[in-house]
Amino acid sequence: MGLFTKDIKTLDDLFVHTLQDIYYAENQITKALPKMIDKATNPELKQGFETHLGETQNQIQRLEQVFQMHGHSPKAVTSPPINGIIEEANELAGDVADKEVLDAALLASAQAVEHYEITRYGTLIAWAKRLGRDDCAAVLQQNLDEEKATDEKLSSLAGSQINQRAA
Amino acid sequence: MGLFTKDIKTLDDLFVHTLQDIYYAENQITKALPKMIDKATNPELKQGFETHLGETQNQIQRLEQVFQMHGHSPKAVTSPPINGIIEEANELAGDVADKEVLDAALLASAQAVEHYEITRYGTLIAWAKRLGRDDCAAVLQQNLDEEKATDEKLSSLAGSQINQRAA
Repeated sequence: MGLFTKDIKTLDDLFVHTLQDIYYAENQITKALPKMIDKATNPELKQGFETHLGETQNQIQRLEQVFQMHGHSPKAVTSPPINGIIEEANELAGDVADKEVLDAALLASAQAVEHYEITRYGTLIAWAKRLGRDDCAAVLQQNLDEEKATDEKLSSLAGSQINQRAA
Repeated sequence: MGLFTKDIKTLDDLFVHTLQDIYYAENQITKALPKMIDKATNPELKQGFETHLGETQNQIQRLEQVFQMHGHSPKAVTSPPINGIIEEANELAGDVADKEVLDAALLASAQAVEHYEITRYGTLIAWAKRLGRDDCAAVLQQNLDEEKATDEKLSSLAGSQINQRAA
């Protein structure tokens, strides 16, 4: 069963609601990434998105594991932030004709996604620990570590050829 | 004049569009923060939001400086991601009755805002450098440094009493 914001009374409720938010976000990302892979022209960027699609599928499984460990069925609630990030990514990617400028835009959108995930996992880990659920925190930490590594790879690409060529 | 996504052809266009996006975001944050200050009960959190409101006003002035350095009038374009983050923050803050749980929710929303700003400033700095605008990059770096410092302060608060008391 989903947890509506009006039902949130305790930190445990907030934890479950935010778990449902990031579960929705990760699922939306598995739908958005194939389109980004199609549009990307830089081979390293395309490969990076492909790797991250595989990681995202594993991250969804880890989230399902956390739901179960915490006595809940996996459930998504709409996440307005991730919808906004994907909406903006589509707007930009749909309108930029130059392939290298498009790559720069796709990369920036992917980093916005990563940072949303990084902040949510950071919050969830802090709350899991406060709730005495170090076991849940440890699983969530694996997702956080992957997101941070992906963001670093994207930053490194951003600093190198993609943006250089677009200028 | 605003730059619509359909007008984006070069990295310079993308830079200006993203500058307009974060200019909108910072202005929305100056409207959202006073409500968050009102709702927060933890004195450190309240003080942190107050300090950040002052910083945000300075950051807006720095953005206006960058627009002018780069030959553009300051202009905002709607940022769907920041709208989504603020929408979710209002949903949560409007519904949580327990003051300490509310503080934890406010803190998480503030960190989502910080991470959006961190990713956008990181992107803008990379693009400014590629465009040979190290002068603009240096001004934007001041905003990025402040956002990162604010996020660290919030993380430190999140790890300490606020979440502990809410559990």
